[in-house]
Amino acid sequence: MVETTRISESELTQLGIAAFCKLGLPSNDAEEVVKILVLADLFGLSTHGMSRLESYGERLKIHGINPQPKITVERVASAMVKVDGDNGVGPLVGMRSLEAAMKVAEECGIGIALTRGSNHFGPISPYALIASEHGFASMIGSNATTTIAPWGGSDARLGNSPLGFGVPNPGGQPFLLDMAMSVVARAKIRDAFKQGNQIPNTWSTDAKGFPTTDPKTALEGFLLPVGGHKGYGLALMVDLFAGLLSNAAYLTHVKSWQDAPDQAQNLGHFFILLDTKKLGSSTWLAERMQDFAQILTDSPPADPSQPIIVPGMIELTKMVEQRKNGIKLSNETIALLQQYKV
Amino acid sequence: MVETTRISESELTQLGIAAFCKLGLPSNDAEEVVKILVLADLFGLSTHGMSRLESYGERLKIHGINPQPKITVERVASAMVKVDGDNGVGPLVGMRSLEAAMKVAEECGIGIALTRGSNHFGPISPYALIASEHGFASMIGSNATTTIAPWGGSDARLGNSPLGFGVPNPGGQPFLLDMAMSVVARAKIRDAFKQGNQIPNTWSTDAKGFPTTDPKTALEGFLLPVGGHKGYGLALMVDLFAGLLSNAAYLTHVKSWQDAPDQAQNLGHFFILLDTKKLGSSTWLAERMQDFAQILTDSPPADPSQPIIVPGMIELTKMVEQRKNGIKLSNETIALLQQYKV
Repeated sequence: MVETTRISESELTQLGIAAFCKLGLPSNDAEEVVKILVLADLFGLSTHGMSRLESYGERLKIHGINPQPKITVERVASAMVKVDGDNGVGPLVGMRSLEAAMKVAEECGIGIALTRGSNHFGPISPYALIASEHGFASMIGSNATTTIAPWGGSDARLGNSPLGFGVPNPGGQPFLLDMAMSVVARAKIRDAFKQGNQIPNTWSTDAKGFPTTDPKTALEGFLLPVGGHKGYGLALMVDLFAGLLSNAAYLTHVKSWQDAPDQAQNLGHFFILLDTKKLGSSTWLAERMQDFAQILTDSPPADPSQPIIVPGMIELTKMVEQRKNGIKLSNETIALLQQYKV
Repeated sequence: MVETTRISESELTQLGIAAFCKLGLPSNDAEEVVKILVLADLFGLSTHGMSRLESYGERLKIHGINPQPKITVERVASAMVKVDGDNGVGPLVGMRSLEAAMKVAEECGIGIALTRGSNHFGPISPYALIASEHGFASMIGSNATTTIAPWGGSDARLGNSPLGFGVPNPGGQPFLLDMAMSVVARAKIRDAFKQGNQIPNTWSTDAKGFPTTDPKTALEGFLLPVGGHKGYGLALMVDLFAGLLSNAAYLTHVKSWQDAPDQAQNLGHFFILLDTKKLGSSTWLAERMQDFAQILTDSPPADPSQPIIVPGMIELTKMVEQRKNGIKLSNETIALLQQYKV
């Protein structure tokens, strides 16, 4: 059982900014990083929230991540920008990419940022939420350290690349989807290991490709994709757009932040944004989005105690609750933040 | 066992054009439709190839599909077009949308066509192949007649919306992925029913939401999505982009071509195209694509008799073989084509 404490959004934000400033980031940049990590914690995605200060911090200290990158944005066509993150902290590079993509999308209806030279950028849903608040529908992806074998293969050659979507709902809750290609995230296996629990044999294989229930053995092996060859194909497509086309590293060229924390990962992302204001009025969109959700939630639940949910509902409901009552954070993460307190 | 005959690509093309012309299409439009259906058959996707002449033809005869649509393309922003298919044959509307999206993508780096007023447009991989031959990477989706229940629900309220991707590989085979969100396509259940076979209980449920092995019962129920809530979420996102944002029908608003063949379905699609020529030279792209495939195929196969494959390889290998030896077509489909022969 992980011990947790409630902390207010503003206090977590202040502690986070102080920590990243101490690690060498300019305060404006620290704010961008913390915005994403705090949203992750608000959504209840604690494995991708402020707990990442541990790995980001370790790598910043040994210059595995550049605390003061010169991020460049090159507009190669009217609706297409290439971003080079100069090995900056992932959520900072992510936010700059998102902003660049929104700018060209507002002008052209659709826009894309293809990003190289980045690092782990947190979960996708915070970016999709920010985009939706500005009226943009989004498709966002990132590649990742290799943890999955090719379908039918026996060693890890592709990342558990996340893919996410968002669609704005003026006056209501947007639809948000943030999915990785494995049955579960690697962080869940790490958690099971820390807590001394076994895992289901559908989550991962050992180093030779055989299913395992031992989290330690699983961490030496590789994750299993959802839907077999479909999840494998989808993970490859995310890497092709996020890594190969962006001129970042891809597949086994992506450096592991665990095995080589002192080296640049050269992770890649893509941000595709659609300006929904070009398609109709906010009333038109709100009516359709409300009707869409209604059709789904009106389906009689198979189990009457489990009402139908729509993507993003769990995270956004948690955000509202935690904004009111404080964010549940592990005491470990709070202790980590205290180390950087002035 | 389905009886098949080999037929050359050019003969199949001629027979197909003659059939669609007899059904009232102008010959240029018939050519576009047949291009997609013949590519589907070349890829070995016979459930989405010329066999569709049966359902398309029936609906054309009773004016459920418009043989001579006035397809409109409205450029709402420099990189964004809205297409209204005027209830034309799906692959015709699809080809016009693809062409419109490629045109704006060439100018702006990325482009999108959001299409309404369409019908079943065949498989996605033929469009992704054509895009890749012109140097475009693609993300393409369509919504569909409802066959899947909301996650935890007990009636069919969303379609088995297909999502596809393509990435060009100058001088080599592109990567193509064309996936539906269900474990299998509904057509596979129809085939099992026609052939009197049982189906695995992971494919579909009966009308009350319980798994079944009987194809007839399954056709009265609804398909199960891959990866549970992940496949459910992904199917919804495809419908949001293809149906809701395009101003087409979505979810239960999509008319069934089987239950109401005489009525317009108002299906929606999206075509997102990236001009890879804006990102680097064809040598740069070819080197990276070749390296990408090599990394995957170099993984030692778990089963030595099953070499690693990359997405699109099976279809493109079949295309080469069938261009040489003729396309394997069911005698039923050939008989169908003969009916329309002049």
